[in-house]
Amino acid sequence: MLLDKINTPSDIKNLSVEQLNQLAEEIRQFLIENLATTGGHFGSNLGAVELTLALHQVFDSPKDKIIWDVGHQAYVHKILTGRKHLFPSLRKFKGMAGFPKRSESEHDMFDVGHASTSISAAMGYATARDIAGEDHKVIAVIGDGSMTGGMAFEALNHAGHVGTDMLVVLNDNEMSIAPNVGAISNYLTKLRVDPTYSSFKKDVVNFLHKFGDLGDKTTRLIDRFKDSFKSFIVPGMLFEEFGFTYLGPINGHDLPTLLTYMQRAKKTKGPVLLHVVTQKGKGYAVAADAPDKMHSVSKGFNVVKGDTPKVVKPAPPQYPNLFAETMIELAKRDPDLVAITPAMLPGSGLIKFQEAFPERCFDVGIAEQHSATFAAGLACGGKKPVLAIYSTFLQRAYDQAIHDIAIQNLPVTIAIDRAGLVGNDGETHQGAFDIAFLRCVPNFTIMAPKDENEFRHMLYTGVNHNGPIAMRYPRGGGVGVAMDADFKMLPIGKSETVREGKDIAILALGSMVQVAEKAADVLHESGIDAKVVNMRFVKPLDEELLLDLAKQGMRIVTIEEGSTIGGMGSAVMEFYALQRIYGMEIYPMGLPDLFIEHGDPQQLLDHVGLNADSVVELVKSMAPLKQKRA
Amino acid sequence: MLLDKINTPSDIKNLSVEQLNQLAEEIRQFLIENLATTGGHFGSNLGAVELTLALHQVFDSPKDKIIWDVGHQAYVHKILTGRKHLFPSLRKFKGMAGFPKRSESEHDMFDVGHASTSISAAMGYATARDIAGEDHKVIAVIGDGSMTGGMAFEALNHAGHVGTDMLVVLNDNEMSIAPNVGAISNYLTKLRVDPTYSSFKKDVVNFLHKFGDLGDKTTRLIDRFKDSFKSFIVPGMLFEEFGFTYLGPINGHDLPTLLTYMQRAKKTKGPVLLHVVTQKGKGYAVAADAPDKMHSVSKGFNVVKGDTPKVVKPAPPQYPNLFAETMIELAKRDPDLVAITPAMLPGSGLIKFQEAFPERCFDVGIAEQHSATFAAGLACGGKKPVLAIYSTFLQRAYDQAIHDIAIQNLPVTIAIDRAGLVGNDGETHQGAFDIAFLRCVPNFTIMAPKDENEFRHMLYTGVNHNGPIAMRYPRGGGVGVAMDADFKMLPIGKSETVREGKDIAILALGSMVQVAEKAADVLHESGIDAKVVNMRFVKPLDEELLLDLAKQGMRIVTIEEGSTIGGMGSAVMEFYALQRIYGMEIYPMGLPDLFIEHGDPQQLLDHVGLNADSVVELVKSMAPLKQKRA
Repeated sequence: MLLDKINTPSDIKNLSVEQLNQLAEEIRQFLIENLATTGGHFGSNLGAVELTLALHQVFDSPKDKIIWDVGHQAYVHKILTGRKHLFPSLRKFKGMAGFPKRSESEHDMFDVGHASTSISAAMGYATARDIAGEDHKVIAVIGDGSMTGGMAFEALNHAGHVGTDMLVVLNDNEMSIAPNVGAISNYLTKLRVDPTYSSFKKDVVNFLHKFGDLGDKTTRLIDRFKDSFKSFIVPGMLFEEFGFTYLGPINGHDLPTLLTYMQRAKKTKGPVLLHVVTQKGKGYAVAADAPDKMHSVSKGFNVVKGDTPKVVKPAPPQYPNLFAETMIELAKRDPDLVAITPAMLPGSGLIKFQEAFPERCFDVGIAEQHSATFAAGLACGGKKPVLAIYSTFLQRAYDQAIHDIAIQNLPVTIAIDRAGLVGNDGETHQGAFDIAFLRCVPNFTIMAPKDENEFRHMLYTGVNHNGPIAMRYPRGGGVGVAMDADFKMLPIGKSETVREGKDIAILALGSMVQVAEKAADVLHESGIDAKVVNMRFVKPLDEELLLDLAKQGMRIVTIEEGSTIGGMGSAVMEFYALQRIYGMEIYPMGLPDLFIEHGDPQQLLDHVGLNADSVVELVKSMAPLKQKRA
Repeated sequence: MLLDKINTPSDIKNLSVEQLNQLAEEIRQFLIENLATTGGHFGSNLGAVELTLALHQVFDSPKDKIIWDVGHQAYVHKILTGRKHLFPSLRKFKGMAGFPKRSESEHDMFDVGHASTSISAAMGYATARDIAGEDHKVIAVIGDGSMTGGMAFEALNHAGHVGTDMLVVLNDNEMSIAPNVGAISNYLTKLRVDPTYSSFKKDVVNFLHKFGDLGDKTTRLIDRFKDSFKSFIVPGMLFEEFGFTYLGPINGHDLPTLLTYMQRAKKTKGPVLLHVVTQKGKGYAVAADAPDKMHSVSKGFNVVKGDTPKVVKPAPPQYPNLFAETMIELAKRDPDLVAITPAMLPGSGLIKFQEAFPERCFDVGIAEQHSATFAAGLACGGKKPVLAIYSTFLQRAYDQAIHDIAIQNLPVTIAIDRAGLVGNDGETHQGAFDIAFLRCVPNFTIMAPKDENEFRHMLYTGVNHNGPIAMRYPRGGGVGVAMDADFKMLPIGKSETVREGKDIAILALGSMVQVAEKAADVLHESGIDAKVVNMRFVKPLDEELLLDLAKQGMRIVTIEEGSTIGGMGSAVMEFYALQRIYGMEIYPMGLPDLFIEHGDPQQLLDHVGLNADSVVELVKSMAPLKQKRA
């Protein structure tokens, strides 16, 4: 096994092409075997094996800076940089991260998880190098999916203008998670599949040469073409127009070609874009055939068949499924309902909605900013748009949520999936901030369902509410409650008391209602009667409830799966303060002021103390405190 | 006067070209005279006179939807849509807005103020139209500066892919506020100034025609060119590659050409981009000669000379100036200091820094997302980046502040200018949310200087702090205090008590420290001794101070020029709650949960109750309340 001897990038410097090919096979085998046990991003890593080997043979990491966009394709990089032995802990609590992480290796240059950041980061590194007068290469490796993100264009525009010496490797597998959308994608497909594109430059040279001796007026015209329009007559001229030298497209699984072009790119000054065509899931038939399904796999999947044994948990519907089904039901009743998502068609569940209502479903690609303003435009045009987006990616559309949706008070429903702790993807993907960052925005209503039945009513309420409204719900599914047959409007800003109690009120939001109920059961055994309220709405708050609680002198615990800072607990305290109701005892439970790493979601919730035990402990500790102060 | 008879777009439908030209002159005169009195955006409106006339003659507003990007160029549109008489109130409190506003006219299709939203909004309108089977045109009018914003590209990418029937009018004046940066800008310049570009298509047709009869192998090659590379051999093929039909460039002051091309664009199906070249300040020599200075003018400027009488207020330095001077001083001491701004070079003051340190100053164009991640990359490369950005535009870089700066805990200083109420630009530009949206982000330090002297120390502290740090300061200038000769590090998370008092503590942030001091003076006369604390830091809070205040049983008023929801007041309440210190009487003063319209900043502060009178009134009302409860 060659792989056994590879512990740093320097170990592959002197390998021959044959040896690199052998190593590529061994790495594929390693990935298939390991991911069968741990789960993880699959297809993108199998597709990037040769590319990563070529990068590390040609460039000199960590002196040369290799920056991975999104970062889920960096497993091979992790293998080559001394982290083979950490694969059994991949994406597990306290184990190796699924993305590059500076704290993990000197070869990881930029923490990542979201798309389209690599060119900006690389330009930062390259500019710092130039100011310091240092001499090394900076390489951004970016997928074609990430190229649709506006910030990638902002960076291309800047780098091309300044002429920064840097290499952008476009790893083009014609997919982000699902097949890409957008003109850029079409353009890349043209470059990729049309042989005339690739051979065009050669043709032009031949053509011009042929007429070079005619010596008439036409020659001068040709000369004029040659001078003025060089950038027109090469493939990749879209990138050339941005000021980049375009190389490619080349086969990303052909090591000799890769090495040749990498060397050439290394020697070319200024901004260079190397277009590498790879196949997601390469070398593993099942993954290559169904690349979107094999984007990421769960642990225990069958290596031969490529399928994962179905976990038998039929009862509680998963939120993405429920979202799709509910959207279809609602769309049947309401011809104005439309759905938008920035590249979260499978993840959000909308893919099913798209099958049912293709003309009313819009996947705009990785383009969060556009998605929100496009939704605002649809609302102005009389539609009722539902924007399906994960909490962490809504951060990218924050200004648009304020400037284009909220200021105009438009009826846009934001379905915020993955709100709260998402688990294995870690820091970059936790949905911790949406309550805090939306709550300060005027006109926004913010709500969270306690279970799958309420989810349906809430979505119905959202699309029939005449103003901006956000519904946040966690990764995963419901809790197995009975489902109502029809929809009902939930009164905006009204809570639901799910358990009466006289000793303390637990005001819980969304996923935390169950936790509060469990805690109330335990507390009851200790003789403490807790009232449990399903708050439903963070904004507006149920002020009547809060005034009642104040009248009763009730102590309050608030609990939410979102940042404590600026969260629902703060909203409750703000309300009392502005009402000049003082002396309330309120303890806000939520996510701590830390970036929370990867791990199993329940493990993480336990870690941060968002579970029934912690609530019980807290409530018990509040009573003596009260006595002490009284 | 033709203008006297123009009250709706239909009034210009039947005007001849001569009459339109006359009207254009009258409109210019109207603008010059009115803006001399009121102030407002100047150059961009003078540049868009013929363009706006042509749009309203060819298209049928409000059936056809005209959407203005940024919107500061929509004054002519306002004149033509029945709002001439409102110009004396332009951008005044309760007067006409400086931007399009749906509540103001049925001809205003989309509220705006930030750049690069129009193509997304237009696509929303157009898609809604197509779903409903309606038949009207949708037009986005976007400047070349706005084209560098990533979301414009996201929208082009989507629209070009889908083939939406819509017109994008690229109003190309080679500037946003200051001259543009970026490859796109270079590209447009090429289209604009190189006559070979414009005539190239014709040339190619001639050329191909000439060789059309040769009948040899070459002819087939030419045919192949014709078929496969049509999009290569037309000007504007960058846009053609995005799936748009490109028309232009045309002279945006030549009405017959404008009308012809508009008609042609109207008849062309699918996404069309019409490239119109205009001159900022056209028709007014002074503005045309210094377009960046005349982007926006203050009231009372001299119509003949184009200058504004200098208001005699020499003492308190304006923050942009002070920022530039301090940055220059700091850069002299520290070779690692670099500055980045997304198109706020003049506004932030950095333009002076650029003159002093051109190689360490980066204007990346309207590209907020890129600016923050570029700064993160620079920090990874060992630099100490200062990102100069307005509060309202930082909303565009929110995800990057979290994902690229905060998670990696990088030493990036964000200099947040225009934090608080900005005045005449209204809703879209108020800096209301930065405290709330940054406070929930782990690792961020947030501070605000009380005056110009502290501003210098705080910036010094920021660039020498090893982690993400934001300094927010208001539009305008200092208060006229003496300046320390040297810099000093402010201890992170420590407040400064500026006045002792036993009856109440006013915890004030930044611009509100002065207000608190003034209130304390008045309160003293009423026998109430207020302690005034300059908090300096919103995060981390001065916990020692807060514990002391609790020990003393002190009542507290917090005051900040930022949204009350999620603001510093909430931070104080969260601290006490998590410490289980109950019974404190805290009243949080800040901006209300409303979008605050345009007006004079002081007028707006009075309107929302952020002034000394309101503090006095509040404090007086708190005392009896306490007695009542005791």
